[in-house]
Amino acid sequence: MKRTIGIIGAGVGGLHLALYLQKHGVDAVIITDREPSDYRDSRLLNTVAHHHVTLAREHYLGIDQWSAAELHYTYHDHVFNFPEPLRFRGDFSRPSRAVDYRVYLPVLMEEFMRRGGKIECRRIEEDDIPALVDRFELLVVSTGKGGFGQLFPYRPDLTPYTQPQRRLCVGLYKGVRQNNPMNVTLSVSPGHGEMIVIPTLTFDGIATALLMENVPGGDLEDLATLDYAKNRAHFLDTLLAKLEKHHPTTFDRIDTARFDLAQEQDLLQGGVVPTVRNTTFEFPDGKCAIALGDVHSVVDPMMGQGANMASYAAFVLGEEIVASEVLDVRFCEKVDLKRQDRVLAASRWTNLMLAPPSPSLGALLGTMGQNKALADEFTENFNYPEVQWDRISTPRRIEAWIARASSERAQQPQAA
Amino acid sequence: MKRTIGIIGAGVGGLHLALYLQKHGVDAVIITDREPSDYRDSRLLNTVAHHHVTLAREHYLGIDQWSAAELHYTYHDHVFNFPEPLRFRGDFSRPSRAVDYRVYLPVLMEEFMRRGGKIECRRIEEDDIPALVDRFELLVVSTGKGGFGQLFPYRPDLTPYTQPQRRLCVGLYKGVRQNNPMNVTLSVSPGHGEMIVIPTLTFDGIATALLMENVPGGDLEDLATLDYAKNRAHFLDTLLAKLEKHHPTTFDRIDTARFDLAQEQDLLQGGVVPTVRNTTFEFPDGKCAIALGDVHSVVDPMMGQGANMASYAAFVLGEEIVASEVLDVRFCEKVDLKRQDRVLAASRWTNLMLAPPSPSLGALLGTMGQNKALADEFTENFNYPEVQWDRISTPRRIEAWIARASSERAQQPQAA
Repeated sequence: MKRTIGIIGAGVGGLHLALYLQKHGVDAVIITDREPSDYRDSRLLNTVAHHHVTLAREHYLGIDQWSAAELHYTYHDHVFNFPEPLRFRGDFSRPSRAVDYRVYLPVLMEEFMRRGGKIECRRIEEDDIPALVDRFELLVVSTGKGGFGQLFPYRPDLTPYTQPQRRLCVGLYKGVRQNNPMNVTLSVSPGHGEMIVIPTLTFDGIATALLMENVPGGDLEDLATLDYAKNRAHFLDTLLAKLEKHHPTTFDRIDTARFDLAQEQDLLQGGVVPTVRNTTFEFPDGKCAIALGDVHSVVDPMMGQGANMASYAAFVLGEEIVASEVLDVRFCEKVDLKRQDRVLAASRWTNLMLAPPSPSLGALLGTMGQNKALADEFTENFNYPEVQWDRISTPRRIEAWIARASSERAQQPQAA
Repeated sequence: MKRTIGIIGAGVGGLHLALYLQKHGVDAVIITDREPSDYRDSRLLNTVAHHHVTLAREHYLGIDQWSAAELHYTYHDHVFNFPEPLRFRGDFSRPSRAVDYRVYLPVLMEEFMRRGGKIECRRIEEDDIPALVDRFELLVVSTGKGGFGQLFPYRPDLTPYTQPQRRLCVGLYKGVRQNNPMNVTLSVSPGHGEMIVIPTLTFDGIATALLMENVPGGDLEDLATLDYAKNRAHFLDTLLAKLEKHHPTTFDRIDTARFDLAQEQDLLQGGVVPTVRNTTFEFPDGKCAIALGDVHSVVDPMMGQGANMASYAAFVLGEEIVASEVLDVRFCEKVDLKRQDRVLAASRWTNLMLAPPSPSLGALLGTMGQNKALADEFTENFNYPEVQWDRISTPRRIEAWIARASSERAQQPQAA
């Protein structure tokens, strides 16, 4: 029986799934409202790092355009702007990499088509759904647009927030010196917010994403509404002053004369409500729509999990499609059983980090400052959020992790 | 940190878990209200076959007392007492075996103690629970006795029945000839019930379990209340007459002169309500009780899944205990994620077989009568109920399975 999978949306989840299915000889059609050429002049979409588990998936798919070592970063630098600053580093076992999605997504779209895949560029309205159900064996929904979102009700029992927990000010900047090797900096100004500094390949080479996660009511909140277009100089002066005060180690890397957005449209301001939704909708004939990526779970970008989860879930879904004879509710149930622990852990972990830190979490950070192996493990777990969740979901678990890491450290031979 | 696991109940789930933990150096204490010596004169407990995945677990635990080939059976004989009888055979890839639990359980209890394990024989009342929570790192509840059942509310959303679907008359008989090699017979008298005929090792060697699953309102229903103790001859005469009419191929194996219960207490009559319960209870201090075996899910015995699921879930639980630093709600969640597909599939599959057969299921049985490979696969899936559920949960899946099996058959070289 020849089957065709309909993939609604061409984000990383939809594209990784489409390329996976193509590689396994399963017909898939992507339907999206954006042409590859629409991305060049688009506003910044997001700032996304791919961790090594995601890079391994790209390698599997033959997406090796950005495999050069100098495009990668190898560690997280953690900086806490306390009166007595806390700073420590955690290394990944293998490097991560960030490519601007306005570069990344159209390359994958073109590659999918070059290999014979079909992308239909058109808007979908609610009226189109019955014909799509008829046409495809399974609908994979990786966009909330076009009436599809409402097929998947929210699950407030799975995520506690109804409002954005941070006021985001996300830009891609030039004039920020990269370390060598490159790294991501996680800079925390307690009470005011976090900033994730990500070396990012964009149209003109490497620029620096400043993903500013500003606490509502804090001193950085205004950056989420400060108008760059209206008054560029005021925006940059204000930003630099705030960076100097709240994120000084990053400010020290800035050449203030050159500091500016890489392009004028490289700024994104707003906020994200973390959500989880039901994943499966059964149509009257027994066919199903299954949610993928952000339609399944939206996370705040702080921990860099959204894209990595979409890619992960795309592979789980692809494997199950290839292995399954019938793509029905039971099929969707099995997909969920395989992906849910990691996908929900990314949501829970990120939500936990958005909340005021518990004393145990504070102790964990303090211990990581003294114990490189522990900081490395925390960093490596950006690849495995379900393991991170095992470690930090409760004070008892954090304490057990600290105790184990401290005991392992005591048993290691110390340098003379 | 030295931890001790408290296991309430000494059925196959509790004992397999205790032996697993013992093998991995984790302290476990079993608490049960029955001494090993209490089993010898007990009423028949159940009739249980261990499929080869369960036998492999026993081998892992060093429970090899019953490994002799002649104690095993190797296939299922299916008999449908239609006007035009349908009969077909399905072979396992490896043999199954049934041992009377009045023999089996005390041997495992003694073995656990011989290896240094501790069994406390006493009744538990609700008042005892707080002290048990205090004493143990985790409570594994594998009996509903003593107020523990109420910790785990029923999940009516996961099983449709509120009443027994069959009136059971289960006995262990002598005077039934065994085939060579031995087999289990699944005999169906449409509209009246099923009978599972199981060669079973009991105190005096192999006897034959007749597990009669009688449909309420059918001609066999009365057997569930017929009184053996009051009038033995009447019981046996009635039973023989019913067997001759409804299960003639088994009747043909009976030496009516010798036919009787193996012992007078070897009869069990009644019915089972299929249930599924919540699996996790968190105490105020963050410690948990987790349900195992029948406390988690009770299945009708028709498909022989209850004991095999309890053993399977015991191993999942044991592996997670060995691998986990903290035994809390997150731990229980992970155990459930690993075991739920198989455990719930056993419940769903059994529930489906209790319902009137759909036309698709009828077609599957008819096809198995013509296609030995399909019948073998159905039989082998008694080891893997989640695979069986993949195959038969909907008419579409059954049709896809029949189509695949028929196509594979057409591609095989036929004997000249």
